Amino acid sequence: MPHPPTAAVARSSRAPRFGANYVPSSGWFYTWLDFRPDEVRRDLAELAGLGLDHVRIFPVWPWIQPNRGLIRQRAIDDVLTTVDLAAEVGLDVAVDLLQGHLSSFDFLPSWVLTWHQRSLFTDADVRAGLREYVATVATAVASRPNVFALTLGNEVNNLWPSNPTTAADSRAWAEELVGTMRAAAPGLLSLHSLFDDAVYAPDHPFHPADVADLGDLSLVHSWVFNGVARLDGPLGSATLGHADYLVELAAALSSDPARPVWLQEVGAPRPEIGEADVAAFVAGTVGQALENPALWGLTWWSSHDIDRALLDFPEREYDLGLFTVDHRRKPVAEALAVAVADARAGRPGPVLDRPGLVCPVDVRMEPGRRDEIAPGSAFHRAWVEHRLHGPIAIVPAAHAGDAAYLAARGVDRLLAD
Amino acid sequence: MPHPPTAAVARSSRAPRFGANYVPSSGWFYTWLDFRPDEVRRDLAELAGLGLDHVRIFPVWPWIQPNRGLIRQRAIDDVLTTVDLAAEVGLDVAVDLLQGHLSSFDFLPSWVLTWHQRSLFTDADVRAGLREYVATVATAVASRPNVFALTLGNEVNNLWPSNPTTAADSRAWAEELVGTMRAAAPGLLSLHSLFDDAVYAPDHPFHPADVADLGDLSLVHSWVFNGVARLDGPLGSATLGHADYLVELAAALSSDPARPVWLQEVGAPRPEIGEADVAAFVAGTVGQALENPALWGLTWWSSHDIDRALLDFPEREYDLGLFTVDHRRKPVAEALAVAVADARAGRPGPVLDRPGLVCPVDVRMEPGRRDEIAPGSAFHRAWVEHRLHGPIAIVPAAHAGDAAYLAARGVDRLLAD
Repeated sequence: MPHPPTAAVARSSRAPRFGANYVPSSGWFYTWLDFRPDEVRRDLAELAGLGLDHVRIFPVWPWIQPNRGLIRQRAIDDVLTTVDLAAEVGLDVAVDLLQGHLSSFDFLPSWVLTWHQRSLFTDADVRAGLREYVATVATAVASRPNVFALTLGNEVNNLWPSNPTTAADSRAWAEELVGTMRAAAPGLLSLHSLFDDAVYAPDHPFHPADVADLGDLSLVHSWVFNGVARLDGPLGSATLGHADYLVELAAALSSDPARPVWLQEVGAPRPEIGEADVAAFVAGTVGQALENPALWGLTWWSSHDIDRALLDFPEREYDLGLFTVDHRRKPVAEALAVAVADARAGRPGPVLDRPGLVCPVDVRMEPGRRDEIAPGSAFHRAWVEHRLHGPIAIVPAAHAGDAAYLAARGVDRLLAD
Repeated sequence: MPHPPTAAVARSSRAPRFGANYVPSSGWFYTWLDFRPDEVRRDLAELAGLGLDHVRIFPVWPWIQPNRGLIRQRAIDDVLTTVDLAAEVGLDVAVDLLQGHLSSFDFLPSWVLTWHQRSLFTDADVRAGLREYVATVATAVASRPNVFALTLGNEVNNLWPSNPTTAADSRAWAEELVGTMRAAAPGLLSLHSLFDDAVYAPDHPFHPADVADLGDLSLVHSWVFNGVARLDGPLGSATLGHADYLVELAAALSSDPARPVWLQEVGAPRPEIGEADVAAFVAGTVGQALENPALWGLTWWSSHDIDRALLDFPEREYDLGLFTVDHRRKPVAEALAVAVADARAGRPGPVLDRPGLVCPVDVRMEPGRRDEIAPGSAFHRAWVEHRLHGPIAIVPAAHAGDAAYLAARGVDRLLAD
C-alpha cells in the first residue's frame, strides 16, 4: 500500500487492519545478528496466508547503534530487506524503533549502562543519540512504500525504572522523539507505545494523556495476564472484553472523539488461556473489539513461538505464536483467520448506537486515581457487567452533556451508573 | 608457534614476549558486528612490522552469546578468522573471553540486565551459561596453533559493583571458570586478569591472592593514571617504575618464587604522559620491566587509536594506540620497536643479584591493608627511592630468612628498611 493519506488515519467504514507482531521463528530477534532472508520470507508468507495485511517488526537498538556515534548501515539494510520481503507477500509493515524492551528482555547499549549509566529519558547526550537513531532509521524505512507506521519503541515504559524518569520527563522525551520521527518520515503514522500501567497504575511515570495525545493514533496492548483473567476466567466478560475495554478507555481519554485506537498487541497467553479455550478466546476478544467504533486495527502477538532452546524467557512467552517454530499453524491461527475473514465481510462491525457509562474519574487530570479504572475496580466491574449485554462506551463525566461529542463517539444514551 | 609446552611458562633466559592489545583501527570492537578481514589483516601486519610476536584479542561476549542458550557460530568464526590472519603475519594470539569490560564500556547481555538482573559472579544459572560460553570459545580457538593463551576476561573486576560479589564469591567464580578454560583447552595458558584495585584497594572484593594463585601466570595491568603519575610526573621513578613495581608485587605475592608475571597491559596515557615524553616513558618503563626476572612478557595497550567519530570514551582512551586510525606509526610505536629490538639483543636483561626490600604487610593475609603498598604509601615510596639506584625486589617478611626463596627470586641481599 502507498503511504497512507490522512484519511487512512481516520475511522472508516472498512474493516480494521489485521496483522501480527513478527517474532522470527528461528532464533527470535537474535536473528538480527545473523540475518537469514530465506527464513524471514517463509515466516512472512505464513502470516500472509492467514489473511493478515501487515506485520509489526522490531529492530534491536543496541545492535544498530552500539556506540552513540555509530549507526550500522548493514543492520539497517537487514531491516529494509525484511520490509521488502514483506512486500513480496503483500504485507505492509509497521516498524518499532527503540527496542528496548522485548518479552522481558531489555536491550540497552553499553553507552547507557554501568560506567555510562544515565537515564535515556533525561540525559541530554543520550537524547541527542536517540534523535540521531530515530531520524536515521525512520528516514531509511520511509523509502519503502509498504511501510505505513513507526512506533517510537515497544512499550518504552518498560525501560523504567532502570532509567529514571518523571511523568513530565517521559512526556517531553516522547514528544520530542515522536516529533523527530514525524519530521524524518512525514508520510507515515508516528506512534508511541506504552503498556497498560500507563492507564492502570496510579504512580506510573507515564501518563494516560501520553497514550491519548502523542502520535497519530492511540495504541493499546491488551494482555489478560495483567490480572483481568483472574476476575472471571478465560472466557469471562472481563477477560474477553479486556481488549475492547482498553480500546474504549483510550478513546475516552482523547480530547478528539474521532481519534482511532490501534490494538497493537493482543494475545492468548498461557496459563490464563488454556488450549481448550483458545478458539473461543480469539473469537470473543476479536469480536468484541471489532464492535468498537474507535478500533483502527488489531495486531496479534505473536507470529511465531519461541524455540525452547532459547533460555530465560518467562514461561508464557514461549507459546504465544500463531505458528510453531517448525511452521505448523496453531489453533489460535485458525481462529484468527476465521475472525479476520468474518471482519472483512463486516461481521461484526462497529456499533454506533451504544449506551455510554459515565466514568467518575478523570485520570488525565488525576493520574493518581488510575487504580479506580483498573481491572477489578468498581468502575471496571460495572463496565464488564454491562458489556455482557452488548457494546458499552466509556464517557468522561465532563462530556456527559455534550451531544456532539456523544454522537461522534457512537453513544446514543447514558447509563445510570 | 605450537601450543606452548610447560617449559614455555617457566622463566627462561630468552627475551620476554612482546605484543599489542589489538584495538581495530576502524570501528573499535564494534567491528565484531561488521567483520572486515581485509582491515584486520592490514592492522595486524602493522603490528608485526614493529617486531611484536603476539596480539591479545577481545571478542565481545553478549554479541557471541546474546541468549544464555545461544552461542553464535558465525561470531566464533570471525574470531577464528582473526586468529588465522594473525598467523599469516607471524603473530601468536592470546584470546580474552568475557568482555565484559573494555575501555570504560561494559558489554552485558540482556539476560543479566534489568528484569533479568542477577550477578554474573554468583547466580547459578548465569554461571552455567558462562561455563558453556567459556568452554565453547576456548575449544574453538584451541584448534588454532598460533593461539597460546586464554584469559577469562579483561579486568573482570570492573564488572563489579554492577554485579554484586564478595571476595570469596569472586575467587570461587574465577577458579571455576579458569578450570573450565583449562579443561577445554589444556594446551593453552589459562589466565585471570584483574585491574590493580585487586592489589591496591583495601575493600576491593577481588583479592591479591587471586592474582598470584589463579591461572598459569600472574597478570598485571600497569596504568600510571591510577595516581602514580601524580607522585613524580611522567618521567619520575614512581611513574617509570610502576610497571616493574606491579610485576614485582605480583611475583612477591605468589607462594611459588618461580611463577612468571605477564605485564599484559601497559600504555602511555594522556595527559599523564605528554607527547614530548612518550619515547622516554616507553624506554624507561620497558627497560625497568625487562630487568625484572619475573617478567614473562609485555603487551602494549593499544595497537590503534580510537576514531573520534565514536563517542563517550574517556578522553584518554582515544590516543593510546601505537598507530593512528589512518595507519600512521606514532612515536610511541617507534620507541616500542626500539625497545623490543634491544630486548631481543639482551639489553637489558633480567637482573638476578638484586637487593630486596622487605614488605611489612602481607596483603594476602590482610587484604584490608592493601593501601599500605599502594602508590603513595610509605612502602611504595621507599621502593621508588631505591629503584632510582637499580632493580629492587620485594620480599615478603615471611620469606626474609629463606635463602632458597631469595635465590629463586634473584635477591642477593636485604635492605634495612
